[in-house]
Amino acid sequence: MAAFDGSIQRLIEAFAKLPSIGPKGATRLAFHVLSSPRQEAQELAEALIAVKDNVRFCEICGNVCETSPCPICVDSRRDRSTICVVADPRVVMSIERTGEYRGLYHVLGGTINPMANVSAADLRIAQLLERLQNPEVKELIFALNQDVEGEATVTYISRLLAQVDIQITQLASGLPVGSDLEYADDITLGHALSGRRSLH
Amino acid sequence: MAAFDGSIQRLIEAFAKLPSIGPKGATRLAFHVLSSPRQEAQELAEALIAVKDNVRFCEICGNVCETSPCPICVDSRRDRSTICVVADPRVVMSIERTGEYRGLYHVLGGTINPMANVSAADLRIAQLLERLQNPEVKELIFALNQDVEGEATVTYISRLLAQVDIQITQLASGLPVGSDLEYADDITLGHALSGRRSLH
Repeated sequence: MAAFDGSIQRLIEAFAKLPSIGPKGATRLAFHVLSSPRQEAQELAEALIAVKDNVRFCEICGNVCETSPCPICVDSRRDRSTICVVADPRVVMSIERTGEYRGLYHVLGGTINPMANVSAADLRIAQLLERLQNPEVKELIFALNQDVEGEATVTYISRLLAQVDIQITQLASGLPVGSDLEYADDITLGHALSGRRSLH
Repeated sequence: MAAFDGSIQRLIEAFAKLPSIGPKGATRLAFHVLSSPRQEAQELAEALIAVKDNVRFCEICGNVCETSPCPICVDSRRDRSTICVVADPRVVMSIERTGEYRGLYHVLGGTINPMANVSAADLRIAQLLERLQNPEVKELIFALNQDVEGEATVTYISRLLAQVDIQITQLASGLPVGSDLEYADDITLGHALSGRRSLH
């Protein structure tokens, strides 16, 4: 028998459907909601509905936004000669936070992954090629995870662009800032060595 | 600058207010909501509001419920001679799940903890004493955490009941089922030894 009446049990079950929240975590969250101000629960409830109501994908870059084209695509102050290719809108946020990039983005919606049944046709590659028809674009920066799927996606798209006159680059691979050389993994250390920079 | 438009950012912030969910976890949850069916977000939103609207505390036992007195307190099939004293409604759920207990409950709402500014007056001890006026009650089972606060609370209430003719017990302390003796901590092993059971 469930010891809790309907509402709490339903809230626990709804929380438990979220990723990486198990039954115990869901119970803790539900009891937090129970003991916290009504305002907080209301805000979360409204934010959930607002996201489903308002958020769409930008018709140009594929980023999540509330107006399509998204604010980045329509921002005239951004450098239109560079497009940064990412797998996921979350990476757009990470790169924006650095404040180091002023170009445009293109969100693929994933990486080529035969194990997860994601092929090149499932990604927004055709839309990327179409954007590259614009002679304004001079550089394509790949900001994909440097794993098998990321590398496969970079190789696949690079080959498609073999005949296109455009600079293609990839994020630098190397040691994270502040990391300890002693604990660096072999592959990262190898990449850091082969990609070493000249200091003068 | 925030790379996301309002709705997603607001959802991330609302998730991040929940305990043990940091900014990265909140972002992951928000993107999960974005890519999952609308129905799921709607259910969570409605469950949040329903909990705040419907849930109250049982006037008798202090458990969370939607009707006061709660279903356990009004259930005529339950054994009214035994009251199990717990700190938190979550423990009621845990004990109910065992299916081993058919008595009533009393939720204290915490344990005596001077460090957290919780004194005996903050707990539902007066209500417990009042319930014990009923001669039907024969046994009080303490199901509090066996830490300093739990022990202090058991001692405090037991002293108040020194003159009351009622059996007072506490959950058995010992080795968890399936645990490895080799890795048992000293205090648990000590309790298991001093509380050893005769087999015939």
